[in-house]
Amino acid sequence: MTSINFDHISANPLLPEVKEAMIAAINHDYHNPSSQHRAGEQAAEALERARESVAKLINAAMPKEIVFTSGGTESINHAIKGVALANAEKGKHIITSNIEHNAVIRSLRRLKSAGFNVTSLSVDGTGRVNPQDIADALSDETVLVSIMHANNETGTLQPVEEIAQICRDRKVIFHTDAVDSVGVLPFDVQKTGVDLLSFASNTFYGPTGVGGLYIRRGTRVFPLLDGGVQENNKRAGTENLIGIIGMGKAAELARRDMDSNLAHVRRLKEKFLEELPHYIDEYIINTHGQHSLPNLVSVSIKYIEGESVVLMLDDDGISASTRSACATGSLRASHVLLSLGLSHADAQGTLVVSFGVDNTDEDITAFLASLKNVVNTLREISPLYKKTYGAN
Amino acid sequence: MTSINFDHISANPLLPEVKEAMIAAINHDYHNPSSQHRAGEQAAEALERARESVAKLINAAMPKEIVFTSGGTESINHAIKGVALANAEKGKHIITSNIEHNAVIRSLRRLKSAGFNVTSLSVDGTGRVNPQDIADALSDETVLVSIMHANNETGTLQPVEEIAQICRDRKVIFHTDAVDSVGVLPFDVQKTGVDLLSFASNTFYGPTGVGGLYIRRGTRVFPLLDGGVQENNKRAGTENLIGIIGMGKAAELARRDMDSNLAHVRRLKEKFLEELPHYIDEYIINTHGQHSLPNLVSVSIKYIEGESVVLMLDDDGISASTRSACATGSLRASHVLLSLGLSHADAQGTLVVSFGVDNTDEDITAFLASLKNVVNTLREISPLYKKTYGAN
Repeated sequence: MTSINFDHISANPLLPEVKEAMIAAINHDYHNPSSQHRAGEQAAEALERARESVAKLINAAMPKEIVFTSGGTESINHAIKGVALANAEKGKHIITSNIEHNAVIRSLRRLKSAGFNVTSLSVDGTGRVNPQDIADALSDETVLVSIMHANNETGTLQPVEEIAQICRDRKVIFHTDAVDSVGVLPFDVQKTGVDLLSFASNTFYGPTGVGGLYIRRGTRVFPLLDGGVQENNKRAGTENLIGIIGMGKAAELARRDMDSNLAHVRRLKEKFLEELPHYIDEYIINTHGQHSLPNLVSVSIKYIEGESVVLMLDDDGISASTRSACATGSLRASHVLLSLGLSHADAQGTLVVSFGVDNTDEDITAFLASLKNVVNTLREISPLYKKTYGAN
Repeated sequence: MTSINFDHISANPLLPEVKEAMIAAINHDYHNPSSQHRAGEQAAEALERARESVAKLINAAMPKEIVFTSGGTESINHAIKGVALANAEKGKHIITSNIEHNAVIRSLRRLKSAGFNVTSLSVDGTGRVNPQDIADALSDETVLVSIMHANNETGTLQPVEEIAQICRDRKVIFHTDAVDSVGVLPFDVQKTGVDLLSFASNTFYGPTGVGGLYIRRGTRVFPLLDGGVQENNKRAGTENLIGIIGMGKAAELARRDMDSNLAHVRRLKEKFLEELPHYIDEYIINTHGQHSLPNLVSVSIKYIEGESVVLMLDDDGISASTRSACATGSLRASHVLLSLGLSHADAQGTLVVSFGVDNTDEDITAFLASLKNVVNTLREISPLYKKTYGAN
């Protein structure tokens, strides 16, 4: 059976060079980077090389602004809880949006039960936050604004540069969850002006379970993991060195190949959007036409359920998703899609198609042909479809 | 140059079968275990196989009592902060000891600034907590007792079974940091009766940056990482599957080879202790004669500094440590050794020698010969030594 991955948003394959680097690290048997002897120093050097590579990818002013974490979720928890607790004496107000990842939403929920007030802003029909809404919501009590860069279900990008400027003018710390954009799009922390940036290695074809948190020098944030003095005293615990070495290599390649990778996935996305109407009808594209990830399309297909589409595509050897993998098993409709103004029925009919460097034009054609059959089959048995068009 | 590792407490090499399993996982390109399609299911199956293997190692009643973490430090932070915050309505008192790892001490310090009261118990001259002291310190406000199993600087074991029974009788949650013992010694969570157990993969020759937290079913504990529904809703974030697969394989081998590994390191430790007096004099053994790790000796060598010993042994190709790798860079004497009643000078002269399955009898002989030279050289230039024995 063919095996085509159109679910890169849930998992990217490792690049061959990343595999090589990780296997070399496994065979090297690095000692503990915190140890004093030479074996420890070798490990520390490998760790710092990875840190430099990651710092370059986002143009951090210095490598020590990078903290390695166990992935995007830890980075987000660290940023949000760490800033809130470190600055609680100044105030207990935080601003966010209605379309954030669960790692943001649930970290904030935890803080609410500790007495913090959270303002969660609506997005417009295209899924974007209005920066003026943030300016209006800021108060002397505000210690943190957390707005994501790229939404993982729609691909829509937020105006983080404008938001960062507003926060900077008001001396409020700004965090952005860029887990699904760093390594896909160029991201320059100095130009953008964010104070904290969460990102994950797998987004740019590194291993899962490894991520980073950029902490601009001087930003007041507590560690999430207390203990040893690792990571410049910002994150305790012996490092996942094999994973970090993989992330460092992936960051190096993401930076080197950014332009060609971007061109490749953009072309696939355009081809998909151009050809889609030749295969199915009655759908809604949830992805912003201009401000969006180059490698993702969210499409709500009327009268059917996205979950059924995913399962039937799987029978044809094609992987896709209907929502964030982190929310699989939840029966509720996506909070992101409902925030865009979609009906529950349309939200449930959503398919997230995400492209990668390993996809080809032929993959798109095979995918669309399979999708057409799946949609036709599902609509034939859809009560909603029959109700609209009459039983035959 | 020869390269001998007597610093297994800081880093164990990966077992060949663990390397193989991790390399196979890298080459397999697993998808996201939370994804709905078959590629996701395969990943989920690999994840659950690892969980079963780890559950067996500690005899957990069911695999879902195991939560995979990014290592011992995360497990400890999760246990301590998670129990404290989830049970704060019952009370805000926690009991611990003076010789815990920094991950425990600093997690508790964080809770103190959030209004918790912490009773930190002294140990006796052999480094052990008296269970009666815990019984005496318990109050209606106590929500957690956290006492480590094996100390990472002295190897001394605490009477966790007795402590667990006391806690159970009083319906107080008991956590033990067993990061340096699980996989080295048999540990049965059902027999011991602990509610929470922190452990780390590298202790049993798995990768660093991967660990586990055993949470007895029904124990009230909040997640440390909020977000997605991974790990049975107990720990959010896409899993470090390559590392977890390595940990699963290491757990399987640790269980299979427990008896022979134990016999091997015990013999090395005995040989070391027997032969040591033939090479150096005037030292103190800080490790408990009976209740201690089979693979570690802490020895305070008079008139010299442990850090200098480590650096000079390194010149002979031998790795050892003077204290917890997590505390490297700290200039203060070890809180663990001071708690035993050691003077500052003797604490500074401490060498931690930790054995592994890869060490041989010849390693011990080479190590002792090198140590003799190092100690003689350092004492020749030691002001303390001259003061005691007069300059020559």
